[in-house]
Amino acid sequence: MNRNNEDYRSPAIPAMTKTLLEDVKKIFKSTAGTTFLIPTTGTGAWESALTNTLSPGDRIVSFLIGQFSLLWIDQQQRLNFNVDVVESDWGQGANLDVLESKLASDGAHTIKAICIVHNETATGVTNDLSKVRFLLDKYKHPALLLVDGVSSICALDFRMDEWGVDVALTGSQKALSLPTGIGIICASPKALEASKTSKSVKVFFDWKDYLKFYKLGTYWPYTPSIQLLYGLRAALDLLFEEGLDNVIARHSRLGKATRLAVEAWGLKNCTQKEEWFSDTVTAVLVPSYIDSSEIVRRAWKRYNLSLGLGLNKVAGKVFRIGHLGNLNELQLLGCLAGVEMILKDVGYPVKLGSGVAAASAYLQNNIPLIPSRI
Amino acid sequence: MNRNNEDYRSPAIPAMTKTLLEDVKKIFKSTAGTTFLIPTTGTGAWESALTNTLSPGDRIVSFLIGQFSLLWIDQQQRLNFNVDVVESDWGQGANLDVLESKLASDGAHTIKAICIVHNETATGVTNDLSKVRFLLDKYKHPALLLVDGVSSICALDFRMDEWGVDVALTGSQKALSLPTGIGIICASPKALEASKTSKSVKVFFDWKDYLKFYKLGTYWPYTPSIQLLYGLRAALDLLFEEGLDNVIARHSRLGKATRLAVEAWGLKNCTQKEEWFSDTVTAVLVPSYIDSSEIVRRAWKRYNLSLGLGLNKVAGKVFRIGHLGNLNELQLLGCLAGVEMILKDVGYPVKLGSGVAAASAYLQNNIPLIPSRI
Amino acid sequence: MNRNNEDYRSPAIPAMTKTLLEDVKKIFKSTAGTTFLIPTTGTGAWESALTNTLSPGDRIVSFLIGQFSLLWIDQQQRLNFNVDVVESDWGQGANLDVLESKLASDGAHTIKAICIVHNETATGVTNDLSKVRFLLDKYKHPALLLVDGVSSICALDFRMDEWGVDVALTGSQKALSLPTGIGIICASPKALEASKTSKSVKVFFDWKDYLKFYKLGTYWPYTPSIQLLYGLRAALDLLFEEGLDNVIARHSRLGKATRLAVEAWGLKNCTQKEEWFSDTVTAVLVPSYIDSSEIVRRAWKRYNLSLGLGLNKVAGKVFRIGHLGNLNELQLLGCLAGVEMILKDVGYPVKLGSGVAAASAYLQNNIPLIPSRI
Amino acid sequence: MNRNNEDYRSPAIPAMTKTLLEDVKKIFKSTAGTTFLIPTTGTGAWESALTNTLSPGDRIVSFLIGQFSLLWIDQQQRLNFNVDVVESDWGQGANLDVLESKLASDGAHTIKAICIVHNETATGVTNDLSKVRFLLDKYKHPALLLVDGVSSICALDFRMDEWGVDVALTGSQKALSLPTGIGIICASPKALEASKTSKSVKVFFDWKDYLKFYKLGTYWPYTPSIQLLYGLRAALDLLFEEGLDNVIARHSRLGKATRLAVEAWGLKNCTQKEEWFSDTVTAVLVPSYIDSSEIVRRAWKRYNLSLGLGLNKVAGKVFRIGHLGNLNELQLLGCLAGVEMILKDVGYPVKLGSGVAAASAYLQNNIPLIPSRI
Repeated sequence: MNRNNEDYRSPAIPAMTKTLLEDVKKIFKSTAGTTFLIPTTGTGAWESALTNTLSPGDRIVSFLIGQFSLLWIDQQQRLNFNVDVVESDWGQGANLDVLESKLASDGAHTIKAICIVHNETATGVTNDLSKVRFLLDKYKHPALLLVDGVSSICALDFRMDEWGVDVALTGSQKALSLPTGIGIICASPKALEASKTSKSVKVFFDWKDYLKFYKLGTYWPYTPSIQLLYGLRAALDLLFEEGLDNVIARHSRLGKATRLAVEAWGLKNCTQKEEWFSDTVTAVLVPSYIDSSEIVRRAWKRYNLSLGLGLNKVAGKVFRIGHLGNLNELQLLGCLAGVEMILKDVGYPVKLGSGVAAASAYLQNNIPLIPSRI
Repeated sequence: MNRNNEDYRSPAIPAMTKTLLEDVKKIFKSTAGTTFLIPTTGTGAWESALTNTLSPGDRIVSFLIGQFSLLWIDQQQRLNFNVDVVESDWGQGANLDVLESKLASDGAHTIKAICIVHNETATGVTNDLSKVRFLLDKYKHPALLLVDGVSSICALDFRMDEWGVDVALTGSQKALSLPTGIGIICASPKALEASKTSKSVKVFFDWKDYLKFYKLGTYWPYTPSIQLLYGLRAALDLLFEEGLDNVIARHSRLGKATRLAVEAWGLKNCTQKEEWFSDTVTAVLVPSYIDSSEIVRRAWKRYNLSLGLGLNKVAGKVFRIGHLGNLNELQLLGCLAGVEMILKDVGYPVKLGSGVAAASAYLQNNIPLIPSRI
Repeated sequence: MNRNNEDYRSPAIPAMTKTLLEDVKKIFKSTAGTTFLIPTTGTGAWESALTNTLSPGDRIVSFLIGQFSLLWIDQQQRLNFNVDVVESDWGQGANLDVLESKLASDGAHTIKAICIVHNETATGVTNDLSKVRFLLDKYKHPALLLVDGVSSICALDFRMDEWGVDVALTGSQKALSLPTGIGIICASPKALEASKTSKSVKVFFDWKDYLKFYKLGTYWPYTPSIQLLYGLRAALDLLFEEGLDNVIARHSRLGKATRLAVEAWGLKNCTQKEEWFSDTVTAVLVPSYIDSSEIVRRAWKRYNLSLGLGLNKVAGKVFRIGHLGNLNELQLLGCLAGVEMILKDVGYPVKLGSGVAAASAYLQNNIPLIPSRI
Repeated sequence: MNRNNEDYRSPAIPAMTKTLLEDVKKIFKSTAGTTFLIPTTGTGAWESALTNTLSPGDRIVSFLIGQFSLLWIDQQQRLNFNVDVVESDWGQGANLDVLESKLASDGAHTIKAICIVHNETATGVTNDLSKVRFLLDKYKHPALLLVDGVSSICALDFRMDEWGVDVALTGSQKALSLPTGIGIICASPKALEASKTSKSVKVFFDWKDYLKFYKLGTYWPYTPSIQLLYGLRAALDLLFEEGLDNVIARHSRLGKATRLAVEAWGLKNCTQKEEWFSDTVTAVLVPSYIDSSEIVRRAWKRYNLSLGLGLNKVAGKVFRIGHLGNLNELQLLGCLAGVEMILKDVGYPVKLGSGVAAASAYLQNNIPLIPSRI
């Protein structure tokens, strides 16, 4: 990103943009979709997904399973949609049994969209999107499937076209390891069709303006951050060099190793069932006599380590280990060694080295050779 | 900007943000205002200004004098405001006589806001904001005054508090010479009051979320671009080191020098009266036998010089010389020398050196010593 | 470093240089010394130390204890000094008993200089410089004391004035964590005096040219790398912010932690006695049935970890763990966890987690809070 | 350059170095030569060229025509060569008539080398190297031809093999527009042969160490600056993208345009004959009632423009305009416009715009389209 930028009306910018819009589809595993690179954050990308495909008053089924799904639901309500909230205990995934009964009883197709967070960052829960698609198909239900993939896309297995996702979105600052500033959106043909009749009021987030400039070949209805586009180009190049499937496999190793360490420490994962375990973040429950905020504070004050706080309902009860993005196994092991010392600091009787040993035993059997160095 | 960023939940981020929010007020010459640094572009900042202070159906008086005011008016209409458009010929400023008659006849105060672009980038026209304030005061009219300062703030004289501006906005990519990505907004106490009753639907752009987190002391309702905040810090430091008034004086010199060159070339300024001359951009009319796009194209193809196209109504008729941001007098003279060669390339009988000579004669008498080098 | 540079003849460069030359003295713990920032590498800094203070044929006592002392001795011989080599087994420190007997029998003061590497990077051996000074004083011997501090200064306890070191040198690329390119030298008044009569032929490395330009106040006899000077400024600022003594204490913790891990793995330190243990690098002996090069190769190929090869006499027999520079405890623990997996890969029966546990147990008791975050 | 560097013992470094050593030959227009990238400055590259090919006492013919040739001669003398100085007035080129008579009378071949600066930066004089070669061939004289190409190579026409140059050298900070730090040397087979018997004392600058490591395939006898190697890679890529001959043509345009401006101002070029005009720097004589230092001072203090001082014999009498490196025509014209204002500032009766007009008239007829933008 650290270079002079071209004038954004120079012919070099449309050419770069065109390639980026195509290449970005790959991270969604989509060929049929249309992509948008909106100069905004994940919150703006949410708003863009909703206001382009739905109209005020539309019924949405939305799953409340943690802080980020909570915030999205808050947005859905404030944007005047009719939100049918399906709540689970924090630490559980989306309750798809409830979804099934709602779909089964909705012969009138009053449900216009299903909104679901693929990976809930607050609790380390990954939802089963293929199951959601299965249920929609089973009941031949035409509801749109809108997915927040902020902490999953480019790190977890995600299949836009295969799973029939209608809008998927992520942000530049997560698995792509860029600064915040691009909301990356992929819309299915069905979502684009829906956008033609959506009555939600929007201008900045309106896909129509983008589509108009795509046709003109200039691509941008207003000034993009060219520096971030250079960054995106570099991030995608690194990603494709490592190989998207290798990146996903690496996150799978990091997630598994972290969970083995947590188990070795005698602590519980906030995520209540194995099917929901997240490979990008692990929320760890602490005994009731410990305030998890103190763990996060000490990590920062003594070890220069960034752990995540427990948010909202799980404040004080969990701390979070992020294992997402440009991170390798040894960096994770250093982090786990740090967590062990912090646990000891705050009075939890951990055996130093135990988590690292459990993680290493798994990793030593599973890390592949670095392809470019064989 | 080129440094590792802190975790955005670390205590270092709120501390930096607090200082930035305070320092940013200075570029608006405001002490009473409240500032917002929204991760968006100028278009998003427009939307934020409108949807936080107004309700759908509200009557707005808005001036159409060029491409950027046109786009803002388009947004205002699509956001369902009742836009009372006051149109001028492109090359003229806002017609304040019409404004006066509208205010005079609006005893019922149906006008809720005046929307005006301080500096219309498409035509190089600067509007007289103090006159707008004078008229509002003269008729004791309570309408809000909303100002697009994208190509003026930090470069032209701008006085938020003195002129009673209610919302002013700019973007990081203009006079601050940063990448695109922060919409910088300053709201008067009256605008904040209005925001409490606004019925426009918004979430991402909602000031309330910011104000809530300002109170909490964490400052951010969602992830900001920390790299851009570092950049903003650096840009403000450079600005204050040079001195805001010195920066404004420098732009005044650059604008005057450019206009002297245009005159020496025997060409006309698109801006029809001296009172509207812009010190950040000059739109130059070309004779009818020349296509101004060809000038812009040759500048890019042969001289590696970025000139601005004529947009919309003035397409083919004007080309634009930007003199905004981190630019000094010798760089401008190099640009003017380039324009002379291009004019000759496209068949206009310019005397080479004539514009540079006219500009230099003025500059040589007016450039001050660089304070840090005296 | 990533900024535009000033013209090197602008007044800003001498001002910055003057401050740098003063501040650099602090890393040597010298007030009486004169510093030189020569655009060269450590090898060039060696040559500068020798050719400015000595004349061809001069007798030097020099200690051969590993690859870097070997290379320096090779240089001394090729520069036509009369080198009296005192050799030790690799893994032992300089033999100061032999030095004592040489000094004792040198009433005629034929020995003109003692050349010693403070920290031999190849074997992880730190020599006792205060003892050398003690011996010189005991025999009232006027020989100059020339010290290679490449892998010690800014990381190990080093006291130029207190230990009566006459020339000490380091490079930008070691503990200062900059790119290679500045040879940093501190010369005592006695060394400067000696430089007046030295008959060694030199121009590029000649201190006289520097001293002449110091007097003129322009400081540079030829073009320096201004980018590296900016980098040096930043590196010193970071160093002083952490505190030089805190930096030394951190390296002491890193060294101790590494040695505890090595012990826990059941391996031997190449360094044969505790008094010589280095806090910046640890050379680890591997059992004879393992080729240590294979360890280094796997580290790079599978774990993206840079370990040091065994050099020359200890090739295949040791691998080296560097713990020098901008490195913290958790990063070291990640590295140690990696080494454990590699040891297992190559067939050494290590208990995974054992080294990390030993290191953590020590570190958890000894890491201080980060001062800026208390 | 702004990236993390690889461990310099990783296999990636030799691979990159090998390509760099090959590609660097192209800037010398050599296929037969051997290149060295020594971590030093131009002064060090001089020393390397001399000490590797000659022995103390060897007779050298060396041309004194300005400050940089003076400094090189000073180095030659201090390195104990027998320097036969051929002096010219400053502003004239090397006196090749004197060279011819010396060669004609040296049937015994006592002259071991001819040392010549291709482009004397202090006076803006370019010497005719093909003529030197012609004379050597005419008298079948075996003397080595050593050339300082610091301010010529990559900017002026330079033909190592065709002109039979034996050692040519430049630095990273000149036409390559990199930070200072690499001395770039190309040695002919004859120079390499001479290096085998040279008796000059050297270690750091010794080519033998490089050649030994070239054979081993590791390439570096000591730590290089990997960041600078990345920078060199990028600089060569930019150079080859523009095309070396296009770069030389650009410098020819810049030089010609500058001289036309000087003429239009009524000032004299310090260079006394057209055959010596330099296309990388122009030294301008000022009338005796003006102190040229004042021009340089005002340029810096008022216009943020870096001009070169008159050095030594021409101090106060000339100022220098550099037109070397990553510079285009419009940047030069901005600089010339600045010089005009400064001349007026100091009381010289220049007609503003006159120099720019003269330069533009030439440039407008001669600038080609930018190939990548056609």
